[in-house]
Amino acid sequence: MSKELIFGHQNPDTDAIVAAKAFSYLQNKLGYDTEAVALGEPNAETEYVLAHFDEPAPRVIKTAGNEVESVMLVDHNEPQQSVSDLSDLTVTHVIDHHRIANFNTAQPLWYTARPVGCTSTIITQLFDQNNIEIPAKLAGLMLSAIISDTLLLKSPTTTPEDETVVKELAKIAGVDYESYGLDMLKAGTDLDSKSDLELVDGDAKSFELGGKQVRVGQVNTVDLADVFSRQSGLEDVMKSESEAKGYDIFLLLATNILDSNSELLVVGEPKDKVEQAFGKKLNDDNRMLLPGVVSRKKQVVPPLTDAFEG
Amino acid sequence: MSKELIFGHQNPDTDAIVAAKAFSYLQNKLGYDTEAVALGEPNAETEYVLAHFDEPAPRVIKTAGNEVESVMLVDHNEPQQSVSDLSDLTVTHVIDHHRIANFNTAQPLWYTARPVGCTSTIITQLFDQNNIEIPAKLAGLMLSAIISDTLLLKSPTTTPEDETVVKELAKIAGVDYESYGLDMLKAGTDLDSKSDLELVDGDAKSFELGGKQVRVGQVNTVDLADVFSRQSGLEDVMKSESEAKGYDIFLLLATNILDSNSELLVVGEPKDKVEQAFGKKLNDDNRMLLPGVVSRKKQVVPPLTDAFEG
Repeated sequence: MSKELIFGHQNPDTDAIVAAKAFSYLQNKLGYDTEAVALGEPNAETEYVLAHFDEPAPRVIKTAGNEVESVMLVDHNEPQQSVSDLSDLTVTHVIDHHRIANFNTAQPLWYTARPVGCTSTIITQLFDQNNIEIPAKLAGLMLSAIISDTLLLKSPTTTPEDETVVKELAKIAGVDYESYGLDMLKAGTDLDSKSDLELVDGDAKSFELGGKQVRVGQVNTVDLADVFSRQSGLEDVMKSESEAKGYDIFLLLATNILDSNSELLVVGEPKDKVEQAFGKKLNDDNRMLLPGVVSRKKQVVPPLTDAFEG
Repeated sequence: MSKELIFGHQNPDTDAIVAAKAFSYLQNKLGYDTEAVALGEPNAETEYVLAHFDEPAPRVIKTAGNEVESVMLVDHNEPQQSVSDLSDLTVTHVIDHHRIANFNTAQPLWYTARPVGCTSTIITQLFDQNNIEIPAKLAGLMLSAIISDTLLLKSPTTTPEDETVVKELAKIAGVDYESYGLDMLKAGTDLDSKSDLELVDGDAKSFELGGKQVRVGQVNTVDLADVFSRQSGLEDVMKSESEAKGYDIFLLLATNILDSNSELLVVGEPKDKVEQAFGKKLNDDNRMLLPGVVSRKKQVVPPLTDAFEG
């Protein structure tokens, strides 16, 4: 069996990095020859996680076709979020917890999607189904990914499966997940060290909605004012990125992880579709408060999809 | 939890009918409220199976939105093979063993695809993973579906998983699967009782390849001459169906289940793409022998996709 690369989405978050490592470990135990790589450098939160568990960052690739013919995707399926030469490659496996969109194959494949909070939750279940033991370090890494994706089990994306798996992994890893989780989340909110571009685009994903190229970034913070005190610089970067990359509209979701509220900043058009999606007007600053909204996947992309494609 | 309908593809074969019944049984055991239905009447082989195990045919529906808001798909995902009002519905679960194409959702969902010979193989594994006992009758039905899809484990789509599951199900059902399987396959090859339209379109599926509407029918036989003695009538129906339904090209794959060879009949254009796909010319009768080809999914659709989209 020839070697395959496994990777998460562009602008990798903790789950994208960790799920690739975990799925590679599992697949190699099952007889595959795989290597976990990444489509970008770890963010500040992921760096904290990797340092805490003494795990190296994965190798970063720009293309895969120069190394392998087949790949496995974790934590994404939409081609515009994946490796740039995906259309030249065969995707043999996908493990994901997002909607399915613009993902087409010529051949049957392994595809395991579950509507749970984190890819690492699904991979933990796959370890259990295959009776393969999870090493303590890997348990700590997957635990971190679930804490990251579910904001310590407080996001509305959280399911009973995530809660069960978090307790299972915390036990294996020997970690007090609540105190560790808060430290970890806070490590990802040090905005002063980030450039405007890093803040706006560091966790951004692209979506094709109703023929429009929609970019949605998200930044976690413990104080929304830390984000919007830099609004002018952020808007400049959102405009220049849109011009350079061909986005019609760029949304930045700033999320307060302590009180689970977000505020949206919008650059580009059609803004009226964004207003339609959330049933309220942008203020004169092109901003909109979204109380209780913390999940891009569950609370932002579906209403945008309905508004843009309705 | 509100009720959901579960169904296989249009022109249902044995797996499409049986997988819906089996997955509905499983999901109801897991706490869902589902009903297995079908998008068409059972074919001759499926009628033989249902009669053998004293199981009623499922209710046939034309649309689902008049009954439910959400549905579960088995044995297909491509919208043009599904219920006519699929775009108005939420798909919550898919269990399938085909390529993924033109399948888009707004929300995360359960999607379990495996590159195995039959959807019923995957569903048997889901029963086992959930520790839910398979009733003898359901084991016989799922066994029949796997025999049908894999031509008694002889098709190149057959995997070790299918072989393992066939033995497991035969034991539960108390069936000698080899003798039963041959009787069952032969029951599906009584072509004299079929009209030209039934023969051409009874098992046909639509594919959108490189912007062309491609219809691919398949008929099993124990003698290819039984099919091609009716070629003129078959071509007339393929032409009139293409005009009525907007197909650019219609392929009929006649498969000899005894020696595992097929012959293709082609009506419409672009025929050169079909010749390119299989690396050989159609004869003056618009026919092409395909030795060793028995699987539309694995041996016909992928080369067509490469030729039409390459």
